[in-house]
Formats: sequence, structure tokens, C-alpha cells
Amino acid sequence: MELSKRALGIKPSSTLAISAKAAELKAAGKDIVTFGVGEPDFDTPAHICEAAKRAIDEGKTRYTPAVGTLALRQAVCRKFQKDNGLEYTPAQVIISNGAKHSLMNAFQAILNDGEEVIIPAPYWLSYAEMVKIAGGVPVIVHTKKENNFMLTKEELEGAYSEKTKAVILTSPSNPTGMISSLEDLQMVADFAVKHDIFVISDEIYEKLIYDADKKHISIASLGKEIYDRTIVINGVSKSYAMTGWRIGFAAAPLEVAKCMASLQSHMASNPNAIAQEATLAALEGPQDCVAQMCEQFKKRRDYIFEREEAIPMISALKPEGAFYLFVDVSGTYDKQYAGKTIQSAADFATVLLEEKYVAVVPCADFGMPDYIRLSYAADMEEIKKGMDRIEELVHGLV
Amino acid sequence: MELSKRALGIKPSSTLAISAKAAELKAAGKDIVTFGVGEPDFDTPAHICEAAKRAIDEGKTRYTPAVGTLALRQAVCRKFQKDNGLEYTPAQVIISNGAKHSLMNAFQAILNDGEEVIIPAPYWLSYAEMVKIAGGVPVIVHTKKENNFMLTKEELEGAYSEKTKAVILTSPSNPTGMISSLEDLQMVADFAVKHDIFVISDEIYEKLIYDADKKHISIASLGKEIYDRTIVINGVSKSYAMTGWRIGFAAAPLEVAKCMASLQSHMASNPNAIAQEATLAALEGPQDCVAQMCEQFKKRRDYIFEREEAIPMISALKPEGAFYLFVDVSGTYDKQYAGKTIQSAADFATVLLEEKYVAVVPCADFGMPDYIRLSYAADMEEIKKGMDRIEELVHGLV
Repeated sequence: MELSKRALGIKPSSTLAISAKAAELKAAGKDIVTFGVGEPDFDTPAHICEAAKRAIDEGKTRYTPAVGTLALRQAVCRKFQKDNGLEYTPAQVIISNGAKHSLMNAFQAILNDGEEVIIPAPYWLSYAEMVKIAGGVPVIVHTKKENNFMLTKEELEGAYSEKTKAVILTSPSNPTGMISSLEDLQMVADFAVKHDIFVISDEIYEKLIYDADKKHISIASLGKEIYDRTIVINGVSKSYAMTGWRIGFAAAPLEVAKCMASLQSHMASNPNAIAQEATLAALEGPQDCVAQMCEQFKKRRDYIFEREEAIPMISALKPEGAFYLFVDVSGTYDKQYAGKTIQSAADFATVLLEEKYVAVVPCADFGMPDYIRLSYAADMEEIKKGMDRIEELVHGLV
Repeated sequence: MELSKRALGIKPSSTLAISAKAAELKAAGKDIVTFGVGEPDFDTPAHICEAAKRAIDEGKTRYTPAVGTLALRQAVCRKFQKDNGLEYTPAQVIISNGAKHSLMNAFQAILNDGEEVIIPAPYWLSYAEMVKIAGGVPVIVHTKKENNFMLTKEELEGAYSEKTKAVILTSPSNPTGMISSLEDLQMVADFAVKHDIFVISDEIYEKLIYDADKKHISIASLGKEIYDRTIVINGVSKSYAMTGWRIGFAAAPLEVAKCMASLQSHMASNPNAIAQEATLAALEGPQDCVAQMCEQFKKRRDYIFEREEAIPMISALKPEGAFYLFVDVSGTYDKQYAGKTIQSAADFATVLLEEKYVAVVPCADFGMPDYIRLSYAADMEEIKKGMDRIEELVHGLV
């Protein structure tokens, strides 16, 4: 029997393919260094774990409202108010099974078949697949390194059509680590208001910013007109080392939020009740854990960038946030290592894994086939070991 | 801006509407008895909670594979082998955020726009909405009380068209509590094989069966041809009082499973990592907790049915499994209580809630507007109090 054409049209995640190969080599006893997964290596802070265990002891193991508990949605409203200057009511907030799930809800709430979503490349690979699953058409706009991978007004207008329904914005960016400035955001906001389209603003890396002169601004805070057109996506996975807990959230204009709530009530119902209690503790508890993790990430960012800069034939911008280094490896093309010729970032990643046991993500599925992504959410020793090996590889190219 | 027509076409859950009204009355100080929610009133068994707390202490708070840990998928395979005589490999199993989410994945994996899914009524209300969200068309077939709400071959063949892609089977049934016999299942299997369509077999109430002469059979176990066309849905919410943990699972032919896995990897990624450990403990740990809960449900089933039988103007079949009593209230039509005339099950439910503070689910959205559903997953005292009040209402009708 035939399966869904839409479902069959989805690309399997290339991140997962590399992870699977790395796991295989690891199982075979190889000493693998992984720069692959976008996951903090820190444990979830103790006070958050304690809140979860308390929730279990108190029997908070039942259904909650499909959109999440009122207490958690209120806490999310306070978070938006405090961190982003955004006023939402609990009815505008939907708690989901991770920010990925929040994004999917958003696309399904707004897209009709054939409607287009502008996705600035490089982009997190699931965006395009999610848009397709929701019946939409991803329209990829390639940004330029000389523009810090930020969209220009011309690029954005050039991508617009009658069918444009939304544009995605990710700041801090996965995979580039760059942060949109107020001017960048204002330009996108003007565009969205002018054409009356939605902005899906993925702010999951909001708290991971490493320079005093950079700060996170939510595009929804730039005025009522853009607030009315923005769906803000956030969550606790990256900021609080809570990836496995799977709690993300979205805030949106009321009609959009209602639609997302209705979808979630039929498609999945409430996210894990205990993780909701843990998230409440994360948002309302002491925040020094975030500052501590941030400080570590900053040290690693400085170190990995310095190491990368010293290696010939590859280049990167210094990331401002998130925990990724986005590296152009096109300078290694047509060179060989161990008889294997490199002609793409995918080749580079394969040779690096097979010959030096370092797992990185090749970025063709992020819309940038000349780049690899290194996640530096690993401890310093691992980063050092991994960069030593990349250096060896590049120095060994003939 | 216009939202998704598909999303706007979804009916809000009427179960939720009643719950909201009940919550409102409760907040106003009324002594509400609720027969509404399909949720065991038991706490999650202690050994399962302990496993979850141990997982937190051991730092199992990271991403797992998107389809769930290998250990859990292996445990699910053992469960299918032991309980259902079904052979699956871990690659055929997908762990999701509850059985609802597993069902949604299944529909999205198999449906193209306009393809039809046959849904026997009465049905759990989300089925029809899920099919629509996935782009399909629900085709409702009304079963008859005199057939124990089981499909007949004629009804099924009458619903078939060139566009039929699947049929849903739910046994034990929500809302009727009836269990499909081997003959019932064989008929559906023959139909599915003959027309080369899928069966989505929702077996979430499998372990809640109250009579020694009834037993659960998975349709997928009736031979290779039907195994190759069946997606089995199950989970731990109902059997292990784990509703809030949100873990369901699906097993399917390999190509279907791959497609579901790919969808889940982009749409939500892995379900909560801690809940996966809890589920492992549920499936592999001592099973006497299930037998104990089952015994309690059986006592309640016997009691609530006896009470219902003694009340005039309403009627029900004795449920064989699950924890619902499905009650025909059409005998009360055109009668009044407190000046309010009853002309539908929805009216009956409204009057019952407003005048007697008992929350039940009217079943128009289950495809049966003359029926209400009483969940007896409540303690005996509550059931007694609720049935006393229903009796008072009916006796007070003029």
C-alpha cells in the first residue's frame, strides 16, 4: 500500500545519520569525539530535578489541560514580560513537547496547502520539513557571510510572492550563532507588516549570548503591528540543560493561539505533567545556573574559535550566541586525505569521522553545502581533542 | 491574516467544554461529581515512580533517539510477543507522546489528501479530527446497539470506496466498553486484506477487561496478510495509571514504521526521557498493580451498571472492558426538569451538570447524539453519589 506522499517527501535528518554512524564506530570501540548534537553537556540543575521528583511524590502524574497547566502558562507570561517586555495572557500560551513541537503547531495553525514560508539559509534543518508536512512550501533565501548571515531587505523582498504566509527568524541562530540587531529585526518587522504575513520567531537560544554588547530582542516587542503577526517560540531545553524533558512553548495572538491549542488537543494533548513542574521551577527558580552555563559556553566559544582561526583552509565567523561554530570548509575541496577526495562539506564530515573519529554535522540540509557545524556544547577536553584532530586532518590534506 | 482552513475545521473537544464548565462550578463552591475524564483515579504505582526518580538522579535527562530508547523499544517488542503473540523488531516500534500522538503519526504516515478512513461510530472523538488534520476524510459508519456496537460486514462494505485507505478498530471500545470477538476481528481483517487497506488498531484499553470469558486479541495476530496492513497503537496511560506521563507506542510494518519515525523526528523528536524510563519499569516490572486496578474497575463496572439498570428511561449494555458506561438517554426526550426541556443527550448532560452537579460527556461528537458516556474511573463513593443524583434527576423529570 502506498504511504503518504507528503510523509515520504520528508528528508531524513542528516544530523541523525551522522549520529548513527558515530554510534556505530563508538560501539566498535573507537574513541569518538562528537561535535554533532545540539545539546548542553551539563546536567539539569539540581533544584529543577528536585521539583520534578517532588511532583512525582505529590501525584502530579495526571492529565493537565492540553495546553499545559495554568501555573506554568502564567510563569511563561511572566518570563515574556520580564525578559522580553512582551505582554501575553495565559490563553495566548501553549506548552508543547519541546520547541520543535511548538514550531510544528505554529505551521499547522497558519498554513494552507501551497502557501509559502520564507526560510533564511542557513537554517535549522527541520524548518523546511515541518513546512512541507503542514502542506506549505519552503522558500529558501541564501544569506551571505559578509552580511553576518543576516537577511537583507532586497533578499527578503525578492523572495516574496502572493503566496507568502510567513517568514522564519532565528536569533541567536542555529547554525551560525549570529544575533539579529535591532535594525535587522526592524527590517523584517516592516516587511511582515507591509505584506501582512506572520513571523515565526524561534528564540530558543535567547539566553546563550556571550558578549556584553549583544543582547536578545524579541521581534514581537517592536510594536503592536508586529506583535499581532508574530508567533514566538521558546523553551527550556537549551538554557536550562533540559533537552530530554521536552518542554517548549509558544506565545501568539489570541486567535492563532486558540487554533494551535485546538490542534494540540487532538494531536497530542498535554506534554508530560512532571516536566511541566520541572519547567515551572526552571523559570521561577534561581537563574544563576543559566549564568554559570553561559560562562562555560563563552570560554568554549572563545577557545574553539581561536583554534579554528589557526587552522588553514577553513574559516568561520565568531559566534555571538547559541553553541555552534559554523565553518566554511570549501577551501579544502579537491584535496585528499587517506586517498579520499573532499568535494563537499559532506565529504569533509565523512573523512573526518572515518579517519579522525570526529563527528560534525555537514550543512547541506541547512541550505549551505560548503559548511559544517560544530556544536561546542561539550567539555573543554573534548573540544581540545576534537580540534587537535581537525587540525591534523587539514594539515594532512594533499 | 487567515489561518489554516484545515486547522480551523477542527471541532473543539466537547469533553473539554464540559470539563471547563464543571471546573467553573467547582470553583464557585459546588460539589461536583465528575464522570467526565477517561483517566484512572489511581496513583501511578510506586515502583514506576521510583524508576522515574532514579532516572532523574542518574542524569537520564538528555535527548534519546527520536523514536525512543532502544531498551524501551525492545521492552515493547517483548510486551507484544508476550501479550499478543506479535513479533516486532525495535525498528518497527515508535515511542510517542501518548497513544494520541501515536495515532496522529499513523494517520500522517498513510494518508494522502482526500483519502478516506472508515470510523465505526460510536468512536473516540479525536479520531475524526486527526484524520482531517492529516488531510484525510473520515467516513463514519454507525453501528447498532443490537450488534453490541460491532460493525457488520454489510456496514463495512457499504462504507468502502475507491478512496478508502484505512479502517479504525478500537477494542475494548471507548465509549462502549465492548470487546471485539475473534469473529468480529476476522471479518475486519478479511475486509482489509481483500481491499488492501490499513487497519489502525487502537488497543489502549487492552488490559482493562472484566470477564473471564472475554479476552483481548490483536487483529495483527490473525496472520501475515493482516499483520502487514495493521498499525497497532497502545501505551501505558490507562493500564498503569500513567496518563500524565504521556507515553504511547505504535508497532507497524517496517516501511510504515520508518515513515512514522521520520515524521516524528521532524515534528516532535523523542518523548520525555524520564517517562520512557518509567514506562520501561511499567512494562518489565511486577504486573500485580494492573490486576489490582482491574479488580477495582470491575467492582465499579458491576455497581454502576446495576445502578443504571434500576433507573427508568435510560439504558446501556454491560461494558466488558475499558472504564466507560455508554448510556442511551433518548427515553428522557421531551421531558422537563426545573423547567428545562431535554431534547438531546447534550441537553441531558447540561441539565445534569447545572441542576445536579454531575459532569458526563454527551456523545454527539462520538457520533451518537442520543448517548452520554460515564467514566467510572472514580472511587466508589463518587460513583454512588453521582448515580444517586442521576436517579434523582430522572425521577424528577416531568
